[in-house]
Order: sequence, then structure tokens, then C-alpha cells
Amino acid sequence: MMTEGWERMPLAEASLCRGCWDQMRVPVPIRGPLAFPLRLAGIRVSRMHPNLCTICETQFERVKGAKQLLVPATVLFADVRGYTDLSERLDASRMAGLLSTFYEHCAAAIWERDGIVNKLIGDAVFAFFNFPIRHDDHLRRAVEAGLELQRRCHDVQAASGHAASDAWGVGVGIHTGEIAIGEVGQFCRDFTAISPVINLAARLQGAARPGEVLVSADAYDQLGTGLGSDGPRMLQLKGIEHPVTAYAVQALSPTGGRVPS
Amino acid sequence: MMTEGWERMPLAEASLCRGCWDQMRVPVPIRGPLAFPLRLAGIRVSRMHPNLCTICETQFERVKGAKQLLVPATVLFADVRGYTDLSERLDASRMAGLLSTFYEHCAAAIWERDGIVNKLIGDAVFAFFNFPIRHDDHLRRAVEAGLELQRRCHDVQAASGHAASDAWGVGVGIHTGEIAIGEVGQFCRDFTAISPVINLAARLQGAARPGEVLVSADAYDQLGTGLGSDGPRMLQLKGIEHPVTAYAVQALSPTGGRVPS
Repeated sequence: MMTEGWERMPLAEASLCRGCWDQMRVPVPIRGPLAFPLRLAGIRVSRMHPNLCTICETQFERVKGAKQLLVPATVLFADVRGYTDLSERLDASRMAGLLSTFYEHCAAAIWERDGIVNKLIGDAVFAFFNFPIRHDDHLRRAVEAGLELQRRCHDVQAASGHAASDAWGVGVGIHTGEIAIGEVGQFCRDFTAISPVINLAARLQGAARPGEVLVSADAYDQLGTGLGSDGPRMLQLKGIEHPVTAYAVQALSPTGGRVPS
Repeated sequence: MMTEGWERMPLAEASLCRGCWDQMRVPVPIRGPLAFPLRLAGIRVSRMHPNLCTICETQFERVKGAKQLLVPATVLFADVRGYTDLSERLDASRMAGLLSTFYEHCAAAIWERDGIVNKLIGDAVFAFFNFPIRHDDHLRRAVEAGLELQRRCHDVQAASGHAASDAWGVGVGIHTGEIAIGEVGQFCRDFTAISPVINLAARLQGAARPGEVLVSADAYDQLGTGLGSDGPRMLQLKGIEHPVTAYAVQALSPTGGRVPS
């Protein structure tokens, strides 16, 4: 497994912003002495991914010449199951510790596969893959990140020896398709993505059981032949008129497809 | 009404960060020539409120000497009703336009009363009042902001002459109490707040009908005597064990209490 030992060996830090390179073929130094003048101009390492600078998020319209851009991408949502219940039983500092652990392991799994963490929303993480760092296999990367973050959160829990009453699980939802990425709002601005693809991924996350990576049928079909799931599941999701088919993916084969049964 | 004519007269811009002043009595220039050296150090106007600098959000632990701080505050959530449905019928640029309008009017109503917009989450806005700009009447300010943003969104819709099929409403949920504010996460960091108060406010927002400002019974009682609501409503909210009592507030009296019947 590529990611083994990540705790000891952090993500390889790039000296140039990988987003500016992939999107514009412009070398933007983000580390080392060459990064200093850019810092004076307010350009820093992005919080969304340690190998990106803040140009893509804050200067999107100037750089891309459009407010939003349609991009094929894969969307991943992960959240802590039973968070509301936990937050009523644990004090704020323990809840912050739990969230911090959760964020860290989600980010590690996502960043390593070049996805960006667009938002941390209380007990949920919203990430997408294929922008600004491009990878044709963004779907596979997202599913790998989902499986990896489940493994990490499971291992952390197993190692902590917490009381059963403090146990927490994670639900992951993944969908793929075209999303509009860019800056929304004028005075009150935000770098984010808009698409029904995102809404469906969020609903799949809501329907995932603790420990599951639930992917849409579209995504599942694109992952290739083989199984690695317990079969299709028909879901009636809030705000979505028709029933939706989804699969809980358990593992991917080394070639990136699903594991054959 | 204090806020009349806001569209023509933007929020009065402060030259010093009001958060640094209220929290530390330190004058931090955010506009004018004195702000230039601070910009070189990476300190800018915050996106959460135009009269705040980025010190409070990115240097929280250094400034306050703690990862999180317990603060009495009021939490406001607002979201667009029928967003998922709309996002399947409208294209991305129209959805972005709708969200932009929604963000703008929420932010105007919140900023003017010194609340901060902590997060924009797709079709939802998460704001809190009393940090870092302090006001003892944070609850009244939040409810005023909720009523004002409903008025604004209603007026925008009425003026646009959109087809009925494109109509959208807004739900607002408000609760008050102690929240832990600070930075969560280490590598993957986020300036946000943690508390069961926030979860309840989010659930109240989910239960509010389009056009409503739904406040918890705690908040309603603290608003003072009088009515201005259609009576208590018993709600069974997801993730919250016991039924919750809430009130849809329709107006506040000029003294800040509820309007007497």
C-alpha cells in the first residue's frame, strides 16, 4: 500500500504550486526563498492542499477568465456518525480533539491522492478530485481516499481504547460527473463547487452506514468489472425525486478496478 | 428601520480591525496606508466580516493562548429551500447567480449587526454573533439579522418576476448559549465553532418553513415578553433525543423584545 507509514513520512512537499502548473503551466514558488516575494503579494500555501497556492481559490476569475468552470470531477463527502449525540455527552475540548483527528486522517488520505479539501463543515469533510491538480483517474483516487480514510479512522479508534460510549464511525459518499468550480458571491465570496453531483454525493454520505464508502451506480460502473461490494442498494434520498442505486465499495483491485469476487 | 437604504450605502468600513480591538484592545489597521506593512505580513481583511482582519481566524491560538475559547454567543443558520430540486432544473451559472444573491443578502443582514459569516456551505450560511466583535445583545442582533435577511430575499424574489417554478424560499434557525470558538485541526486547520448549540440551530433551520425564523424556546424566553410568534411548536429533530420547543418569530419590538400581541 502506497500510503503505509504516512504518519511518519508526511506528504512530499512541492516547491511549485501544482495547481498553477496543471491549470496554466505557470511555475509559482510556494516554498523556499523564491516563495518570499509572492508571500509579500499575499500568495501563500492553500489550506485546501499543502501543494497548492492561494491563487486558484482567491484569483479564480482573473486566472481562468470566468466566474465558474465546468470540470469533470469526483466529489467525496465524509462525516462522523453520531456526532450530535457525542457533542451532547463530551465536552468541547474532547469534541475538538475528535474532529481534529478526523480532519487529519481525511486530509491525509485525500491530499495524498491530490484531492482538495474544499470545506470542513462541523463533523463533515467536502473534497473533490481533478481540480486544480489534474488526474484522469480522479474517480479511482477518490474511492481509494475513501477506503483509506475509513481504514485510518478505524485504526485510530481501535488503538485509542476509548469506552464504547465514545465510539464513532465515519460515513463516506462518492459521486462523479461535471461540476462547476469557481468563486460564488461578490462581497461575500467563496471558492467552491456547484452541481447536482455534489448534492447526490452528500445524500449518499448521509445514507452510508458507519464504515462504508457508498458510491453512485454511475461511479461504480466506471470503476470497471469485478465486485468488491455487497450488491446494489436502492435508496430513497431526501430532495431527490427518483430512487437512487448505490454500492458500498469494500476494496479496489491493484489495477484500479473493483476487486473481482 | 436602521438598515433601510443599505443597498445604496454599504456597511461603514472601519480603519482598525474591530475584532482585535474588542478582544485584545490592540489597534490593527486594516485600511489606508497603515495597513500596508501588515499586508506584507499576510494580514488582510477577513472574508467573514469586512471590519475584521485575518489575525483572529489564523492566529487564534497565539492570540488567545488557547486552542478553543468558550464564549456566550448566538448561532444563525440560513438555507435555500428546494435547493437540490432547483439545482437539477437550473444550469450551473443560474445556480451560482442564485447562491450569490442569497450569500450577499445574508451577509449584509449579518455583517451590519456585527455577526460573522463563518461558513458558506453550498446553499447554507452559518453565522455567529458576539465573537470577535462583542455585543451583549447578540441574541437580539441575530434575530434581527434573520428577520432582515428573510425580508431581503423575499423582496429580491418579488422584484425579479421569476417563473413560479424558479421560486425559492429561505429557512432560518437560531439558538443561543455557550460555544467553543477556535482553530480545530493541525495540518488541516479550520477556524470554526463547536457546540451542541450549533447542532440544534442547524436542526431548527432544517425544521423552519420557507420564510420563517425559527428560534429555540431558550432564545425566545430571553427575547423578553410579548408575542410576535404563532405560539410554541413541538419538534422531533434528527439526532436529538427529546422533543424540542421552538417559535417562529415574526417581528421584534423597537426595544428589542418581541412584539406584544
